[in-house]
Amino acid sequence: MPSVQATARFVHNVMDEHSGRIIMSPPLVSLDLPDVWAPKFTCSDPLTTDDDSKEGDAVVIDGKLIAEQIRLGIANEVRRMKDSIRKIPGLAVIMIGDRKDSQTYVRNKIKACEETGIKSLLAELPNDCSEDEVLRALSSFNKDPSIHGILVQLPLPDHLDEERILNVLSLEKDVDGFHPVNMGDLAMRGREPLFIPCTPKGCIELLIRLGVEIMGKKAVVIGRSNIVGLPTFLLLQRHHATVSVVHAFTKNPEDITLEADIVISAAGVPNLVRGSWLKPGAVVIDVGTYPVEDPDSEHGYSLLGDVCYEEAMKVASAITPVPGGVGPMTIAMLLSNTLDAAKRAYDFS
Amino acid sequence: MPSVQATARFVHNVMDEHSGRIIMSPPLVSLDLPDVWAPKFTCSDPLTTDDDSKEGDAVVIDGKLIAEQIRLGIANEVRRMKDSIRKIPGLAVIMIGDRKDSQTYVRNKIKACEETGIKSLLAELPNDCSEDEVLRALSSFNKDPSIHGILVQLPLPDHLDEERILNVLSLEKDVDGFHPVNMGDLAMRGREPLFIPCTPKGCIELLIRLGVEIMGKKAVVIGRSNIVGLPTFLLLQRHHATVSVVHAFTKNPEDITLEADIVISAAGVPNLVRGSWLKPGAVVIDVGTYPVEDPDSEHGYSLLGDVCYEEAMKVASAITPVPGGVGPMTIAMLLSNTLDAAKRAYDFS
Repeated sequence: MPSVQATARFVHNVMDEHSGRIIMSPPLVSLDLPDVWAPKFTCSDPLTTDDDSKEGDAVVIDGKLIAEQIRLGIANEVRRMKDSIRKIPGLAVIMIGDRKDSQTYVRNKIKACEETGIKSLLAELPNDCSEDEVLRALSSFNKDPSIHGILVQLPLPDHLDEERILNVLSLEKDVDGFHPVNMGDLAMRGREPLFIPCTPKGCIELLIRLGVEIMGKKAVVIGRSNIVGLPTFLLLQRHHATVSVVHAFTKNPEDITLEADIVISAAGVPNLVRGSWLKPGAVVIDVGTYPVEDPDSEHGYSLLGDVCYEEAMKVASAITPVPGGVGPMTIAMLLSNTLDAAKRAYDFS
Repeated sequence: MPSVQATARFVHNVMDEHSGRIIMSPPLVSLDLPDVWAPKFTCSDPLTTDDDSKEGDAVVIDGKLIAEQIRLGIANEVRRMKDSIRKIPGLAVIMIGDRKDSQTYVRNKIKACEETGIKSLLAELPNDCSEDEVLRALSSFNKDPSIHGILVQLPLPDHLDEERILNVLSLEKDVDGFHPVNMGDLAMRGREPLFIPCTPKGCIELLIRLGVEIMGKKAVVIGRSNIVGLPTFLLLQRHHATVSVVHAFTKNPEDITLEADIVISAAGVPNLVRGSWLKPGAVVIDVGTYPVEDPDSEHGYSLLGDVCYEEAMKVASAITPVPGGVGPMTIAMLLSNTLDAAKRAYDFS
């Protein structure tokens, strides 16, 4: 069983840098295995057998580096598409209001498109725009054949009905994977969604590239949002982990996380996960990005994760930092979904 | 906190028998509560505080009786609909092939329709029928305004594509709740599905009518089928249980079930769940129905549950028998979904 090791080596394992064609790990969506029941009564083996590990030696999972590798592969594919059929993928972003964190996310997404050769369009609407204005922008992108992916930056201002808006988004362009059909197809065995939501997809891609075995492991997802917690649960279960979902109504959540080989935290609660919540050797993916004012930072705020990083470092075998862990992966997965959408639209493989 | 007590008393609590109008427990779909994180570090209270309980005193959950009460309420509603608007609900069943267990299920469903005044139509197709024949039957029921619910009895013969067939079923008539849009809407917070799959709905209805508190409790679902395991997980989580899903790749599943206040087993593996797997006082819902040949039985076979009943009786505080537990509830929920579909179609409340 592979244990968690330094990042770079595994990136090379799954990516053919010469052709640049293998962008995502092949078994990302699911491993199709029959449910043959053969309960074992022996103790499960821990994720790492490194019993003489010293304190403070968790591998820092360099999401930024891995995301860069993936973006490089995507840029190669975009170039190949352009050379072959004279088309490039196109992403449209609809941003409503002036939330600083949303502005940063959108800016980063647009920039990442430019760097990989993906066309991007941005529709910025004021905080007090009407639902009709949003739906008009959405409809025009739905119809635009040069646009293959559309995302509506969430959260929306309170007066807008997220469900009504997302329902209008063309299923074939739902690169965020938030349409209920995509979610239903992700949930149901024997079906495949058109798109996997970007953040969960990025988390699993990190685990696969790190060589972390998921099948048969105990995983805990903290948080049950539509955007992260729910699809992360569904995706981990597709990989045959035994998954528990912890949320705000869970009593003694640490009792559950303490048993987990893999902890993916997406609660948005700074320092929720203490070192004492973790099983020694666990792999910890921190999705939390809680913005706090920070006059020293370029954009006036910085981000806090869900995990007490210093404490967790001493217990976990691998951990993602915030920022620089899951964030860059989310953007890379958005580009990957947009590329996939364009390939499907042009029947290009 | 209510503990598990005898069935009949709770049935009266949630059902107004004079009007017969309250057929399902009001908070069945979900309790809409914000995720306010306030982890507690005290021990969680056990589900029952009955420390001096004797061995062998689990309450047998009489699903047959509870289902009868529900069917009575549905019959009243059907009569009221007929008297008011001269319409009745209609259910169409498509059965393919000659599986004995499927035949029994379908026969029971048709009979239950007759008893409650719901119109029923049955399309029986041979084992070797073509996909086109199935789709034709489905389309004609989709168009028939006197039919409000359609179900395709699963499993299908191997040569038929379940996904393609279920995708054709009108969303408004999907009384089994197996369409990916219904599943996606069940999965996503802030959305409500048109229909909840019948067996999970029946399990939760049993828990509610028994007065079993779900919120904040640890629940384990054994099995992850599209029909039972997945929607049962989603529904328990909507009720704010902390849910773990155990499946064939889970190592030492008993370590997880031993922590659970509520165990819902839907593996289809006879005697999988031993008494030693259960926490004292747990509530056990056995969805397993494994058919075994039995010449003494009326139809030539009898059904085995997932749970070692005699062992579990000594540990659990309440348990469903097989048969007579979840089975009758599944049928009652099908009638309830069909009634709901007809009410929606006629805008009758």
